[in-house]
Amino acid sequence: MAILSCPLPRPATDRILLAHGGGGRLTNQLIESVFLSAFSNSALESRHDGAVLSASGTRLAMTTDTYVVQPLIFPGGTIGDLAVNGTVNDLAMCGARPLALSAGFVLEEGLAMEILHTVVAAMREAARVANVPIVTGDTKVVDKGKGDGIFLNTTGIGVVVAPKPVGPESVRPGDAVLVSGDLGAHGITILSVRDGLEFEGPVSSDTAPLWAPVQALFEAGIEVHCLRDLTRGGLSSALNEIASVARVRITVEETLIPVSDVVRGACELLGLDPFYVANEGRFVIFVPESDAGHALEILRSQSVSAGAAQAGTVHEDRSGIVTVRSRIGGHRVLDMLSGEQLPRIC
Amino acid sequence: MAILSCPLPRPATDRILLAHGGGGRLTNQLIESVFLSAFSNSALESRHDGAVLSASGTRLAMTTDTYVVQPLIFPGGTIGDLAVNGTVNDLAMCGARPLALSAGFVLEEGLAMEILHTVVAAMREAARVANVPIVTGDTKVVDKGKGDGIFLNTTGIGVVVAPKPVGPESVRPGDAVLVSGDLGAHGITILSVRDGLEFEGPVSSDTAPLWAPVQALFEAGIEVHCLRDLTRGGLSSALNEIASVARVRITVEETLIPVSDVVRGACELLGLDPFYVANEGRFVIFVPESDAGHALEILRSQSVSAGAAQAGTVHEDRSGIVTVRSRIGGHRVLDMLSGEQLPRIC
Repeated sequence: MAILSCPLPRPATDRILLAHGGGGRLTNQLIESVFLSAFSNSALESRHDGAVLSASGTRLAMTTDTYVVQPLIFPGGTIGDLAVNGTVNDLAMCGARPLALSAGFVLEEGLAMEILHTVVAAMREAARVANVPIVTGDTKVVDKGKGDGIFLNTTGIGVVVAPKPVGPESVRPGDAVLVSGDLGAHGITILSVRDGLEFEGPVSSDTAPLWAPVQALFEAGIEVHCLRDLTRGGLSSALNEIASVARVRITVEETLIPVSDVVRGACELLGLDPFYVANEGRFVIFVPESDAGHALEILRSQSVSAGAAQAGTVHEDRSGIVTVRSRIGGHRVLDMLSGEQLPRIC
Repeated sequence: MAILSCPLPRPATDRILLAHGGGGRLTNQLIESVFLSAFSNSALESRHDGAVLSASGTRLAMTTDTYVVQPLIFPGGTIGDLAVNGTVNDLAMCGARPLALSAGFVLEEGLAMEILHTVVAAMREAARVANVPIVTGDTKVVDKGKGDGIFLNTTGIGVVVAPKPVGPESVRPGDAVLVSGDLGAHGITILSVRDGLEFEGPVSSDTAPLWAPVQALFEAGIEVHCLRDLTRGGLSSALNEIASVARVRITVEETLIPVSDVVRGACELLGLDPFYVANEGRFVIFVPESDAGHALEILRSQSVSAGAAQAGTVHEDRSGIVTVRSRIGGHRVLDMLSGEQLPRIC
């Protein structure tokens, strides 16, 4: 029978690949084929950063993330503050004020206690800045060689303050697409320390809590349609997921999207596109065009989103595609990555 | 200087040991020295299975657990239903009706997709039985050799239905100590499959959701003082933690605590004490002596706690110790394990 076997490579869907964790198309396929089909419920199917549910009349948001970043400590942060900020941000993206976090550690036998202390201290400081308590936790230890120092799950609950649903399904043709600041710093930082690369200048992670600018938008009465932080898969994954769920076309202008010189230089050197690189303190905001100017003013008044810019527009077109108008005026499709650009970035 | 160095072994507190994850004294030391000191807040300091907090007037419970059990699939369950049941149970122990769960996966590159499907199917079934939706999730993939198949965090939120605080601080001298069923099946099952041991008969994990019997107790108006599931560290760790926080002495009668013949035989063979072995569907209940008979009736009417028994009593004595009256009438102290009896049991 060997002679009849097909010589073409098949997608290896019978084993988990690193790319299944990359936040791109394979991650989406895994979620759809394994998790959504098993756990179907309306909260999960909204495919947002968190679920919104009702508890005795209170609207709660719930979100979970496990962090597996390597190295555990990097310029600008550690796995600890990355986790706290990441979960605070996923709640913020649901329009929810963070109420409480849990922390679940998987520690590898032999981990230096000093590293754990550093990570925990960074978590405490991040929780203090974000004004959210870590109310419950769990610690497991696995044999040496069966883990990688620290894996850290943070799950958060928050109280939804958004007056209307915030999510991809609320995006409308005509909406303005705002980006909260320059892209790519987190991903390039991790890459640089992991591979010992040096670029034109120092670069450090943008990890930061985003509730303050989100709260300011709601307090000013901005009609926020959708919020999404630009983590794994970067701007590209976020916009593609939103365009696909909202069944619209999104166009962005390359020249309007802020990217620092260091990140741009590093991306050119490495053949990376900054629109695909992970961020941990940046988000996109969809608002009606009429609110865009006011929203930008508010965002720019907060330090974490001081570099906010209007980057694009939503169009009536059920294709669900995202296009970029380049510096030289041409258009290209900003597709979702199939796999993994940088593994274990968060 | 080498000549002056101390030849006695020092406790290796500068590195994480497997015993830090065992649920015994070293786990407690780690929690106190690293986590509690960093994240101090009243919810965390109650040292219960979960935190109780208030959201716009609704009393919520929140609990988190990461599961690292090996093997992933064992007689009576998988890591998936173990995780769902474990989190449902931690909520139940807070007197809370499970409202929603999150699931955070860390998958190892190369994991067979079939195993993931089996685990996810078991989660779905456990969630269906416990009547709780899995509303949000996260998937990370780590390089081959940096994980161990699947690590799974489940975090749960629930609505507290207990009319009064349920926890160690509510335990009073004179309380009866009830045990919901026979002890040790989960731990002995994991040990038997891991080491290929065969005992006098088949043994399978007791993993099960415990909300139904807890709800029945509250609905019947039983004055429940404390609930605790008997996971890592077994009955011994649970009673010691409660006695220590409540500043009471707890005595139990060895002859009154149910242990199956297979588990008793296996424990004798292996030199284990069933009071230290992990359970995943058993709990202790502290109620006033006057409610004990009624509570036992209710517990025995539910299949998961059909084997409930009154096992001991709480005494006025601020020592915080736990003693067992043995079969032959002698008393011994049931101390907390220092380290790990069986690593990676849950």
